[in-house]
Amino acid sequence: MTDLKTRIEEANGKAFDILRQGKPQIVDVAPAIEVVPGMKPNLILHSAPAIAFAEMCGPHRNGVIGAALFEGLAATAEEAEAKLLSGEIETAPCHHHATVGAGAGITSASTPMMVIENTTYGNRAYSCISEGGGLRLLKWGWYDQGVIDTLRWQADHFAPVLKAALAASGPIDLKNIISRAVEMGDECHNRSVASTFLFLKELYPHLAAMELTEDVRASIKFLVESEHFLLHAIMAGAKSMLMPAEGTEYSTMVTAMARNGVDFGIKVSGLGDQWFTAPANDVKGLFFRAEWGYEDAAPDLGDSSITETVGLGGFIQPCAPTVTQYVDGSLAEAIANTNEMFEICIGTNPDVRIPAMDFAPAPLGIDIRKVVKTGITPHIDTAITHKDGGLIGAGEVRAPIGCFQKALKAFGEKVQG
Amino acid sequence: MTDLKTRIEEANGKAFDILRQGKPQIVDVAPAIEVVPGMKPNLILHSAPAIAFAEMCGPHRNGVIGAALFEGLAATAEEAEAKLLSGEIETAPCHHHATVGAGAGITSASTPMMVIENTTYGNRAYSCISEGGGLRLLKWGWYDQGVIDTLRWQADHFAPVLKAALAASGPIDLKNIISRAVEMGDECHNRSVASTFLFLKELYPHLAAMELTEDVRASIKFLVESEHFLLHAIMAGAKSMLMPAEGTEYSTMVTAMARNGVDFGIKVSGLGDQWFTAPANDVKGLFFRAEWGYEDAAPDLGDSSITETVGLGGFIQPCAPTVTQYVDGSLAEAIANTNEMFEICIGTNPDVRIPAMDFAPAPLGIDIRKVVKTGITPHIDTAITHKDGGLIGAGEVRAPIGCFQKALKAFGEKVQG
Repeated sequence: MTDLKTRIEEANGKAFDILRQGKPQIVDVAPAIEVVPGMKPNLILHSAPAIAFAEMCGPHRNGVIGAALFEGLAATAEEAEAKLLSGEIETAPCHHHATVGAGAGITSASTPMMVIENTTYGNRAYSCISEGGGLRLLKWGWYDQGVIDTLRWQADHFAPVLKAALAASGPIDLKNIISRAVEMGDECHNRSVASTFLFLKELYPHLAAMELTEDVRASIKFLVESEHFLLHAIMAGAKSMLMPAEGTEYSTMVTAMARNGVDFGIKVSGLGDQWFTAPANDVKGLFFRAEWGYEDAAPDLGDSSITETVGLGGFIQPCAPTVTQYVDGSLAEAIANTNEMFEICIGTNPDVRIPAMDFAPAPLGIDIRKVVKTGITPHIDTAITHKDGGLIGAGEVRAPIGCFQKALKAFGEKVQG
Repeated sequence: MTDLKTRIEEANGKAFDILRQGKPQIVDVAPAIEVVPGMKPNLILHSAPAIAFAEMCGPHRNGVIGAALFEGLAATAEEAEAKLLSGEIETAPCHHHATVGAGAGITSASTPMMVIENTTYGNRAYSCISEGGGLRLLKWGWYDQGVIDTLRWQADHFAPVLKAALAASGPIDLKNIISRAVEMGDECHNRSVASTFLFLKELYPHLAAMELTEDVRASIKFLVESEHFLLHAIMAGAKSMLMPAEGTEYSTMVTAMARNGVDFGIKVSGLGDQWFTAPANDVKGLFFRAEWGYEDAAPDLGDSSITETVGLGGFIQPCAPTVTQYVDGSLAEAIANTNEMFEICIGTNPDVRIPAMDFAPAPLGIDIRKVVKTGITPHIDTAITHKDGGLIGAGEVRAPIGCFQKALKAFGEKVQG
């Protein structure tokens, strides 16, 4: 009989290979109600893990209220709150619907979704399209008439243009975009400028081949001004790569990391759908205005750490020295962080190479055993959100070790039980 | 009376400030005959320094013959050669006409030129538009019917579209593009992918606002496929920054470096229009096909070393680790090269910062005294051209010290004479 350690190593090798061989492609844009599994008119998704409305932090709370107003599920914030508390309006984590959401991750029935297909395995994952730049967006837990007007314009005017352009272009290879973007200053979490340019390069000839309606012109203007537009697609791409690796018996590989501003949660391949949580840490970083400081910030939140779960973002900070400026860091420190990530990963990714480390392949596939043994926790690049909503800064954070310890304990009980 | 050393230091400070304060902007595209000073129908420009047709290397020779055919100055290569030898068709260095040309630098009356204005000083410089990607282009000293057809299409169809889009956009800030591109993997000589994307980002909304004729659609397709399109504009931008610094009495700052496949030439601010030359070195690098090797290569050629003259390209290789792959190099070696360039430069450029060196400002303004004293010569990223024409590789080369020694001797004679 194979001993346990060998069985785990084999399972991790299998899960890792599934992850490494995933090929995410951007295939469509469509309203959540049409494509997201289990989506309902009265359902609002948020960044995971699950949390009751009454316990949500400010950005999540504002986000779901804003979505209820946007969808016409309530006429006022008070009505929305009452319906959210009574359960007439439901909430659930994006992750439970093959979806990931940046920041508060707010996604409702009308939200236009980037549809990503992992063509190696045929599964799909989803993420809302970017609302563009700016500090006050629904994803940062902010709503006002301007935010809702933008969401409306995106759903009714922008998304159909993007859908048509994608239909004309055919699937756009997201894996290839990521491979190139990491050579162009992106770490694909806090920075996705090159990724966005590479995506638009594929899209422009098809946009320009369309009849030049006002919608097309406005859409092109929006796209060229949204320098981090592709992050949401990269997140869904990461999710699509991880999904086929879920449920690999005996595997200790992490298949999701997500934060809701209260808890930091992980999922583990061999442990099914269960979240293992610990209190979310505070983000260390740069505040965008002098009036803001640590006392204003919500704890770490968002599903965007799905990028680190596939070895991007904080795992490859040396690809994007610009993001080290948020923490007054240096390339040497960024390289030290990446070297730590090698210690907690199963293997490396030949499709993502780090120019400032002489094109070393990126660390890939977090092993909860290695995290617990070394005490090194995943290094995550992220935004800083105001506790009452709105983006106020950017920086980096470490995952709390508690959720890895809990997961490893549960794993031990499962495999020995 | 001020001593000589102080006088030189003051002059170099002045020339350096002029260089640093230049603000190149892309303002127009127009045929050479309409905009290039001194252009004539029977004149063909090539990369400098000056050389008689009979003594040109293969790529230059092929290039001027190809241009003669393109312009209809001759019906056959033989007729072109005869007219070039007799002087009926004239040749001159691009540099003598406020112009720079990549590779063989072939520029004739119909050539569409990028027009760059240094808005700080009001002067303009020029470079032909990129012929796009590919190994067989006029600039690489290759001509055939396909090359001539492309040149015709560019002159008659593409350039008018680009001109109209630029008229609609207004001047595009090249200095800002360079500042951003060096954070995105470009060193702005052997690699200008990010620069090109940043330029297209400015241009697209205006291209998309035009009536979508066949020419506009084909132009957009050409632009998205030409990933190094902006290099020629960057070169003209560099020239435009250097021109106001020419003729600064007592300055030992280099104002041009250029190679014609036979000689490597430099100009020096305090020494007027004179070229100081030494034999061009061989380029060390990667050949794009196994069938090609050093025995096939022409010596170093092209005006593109104007980028190093303003502290880009080989001076900031750590910005673009991808280009070190041409010489099987490492980031450490690239940083060592840049550290050497600091030793031969007058100062540093706060507008060009090197991410992999914790955003150190780039070396700027080559001082011939420092080159001769240290024996360190400018480090140049460049292409490798076949001795009979055609691009066959890319790599790096050092400027020969001889031209700096000659220039310093002439400088000594002038200031003491």
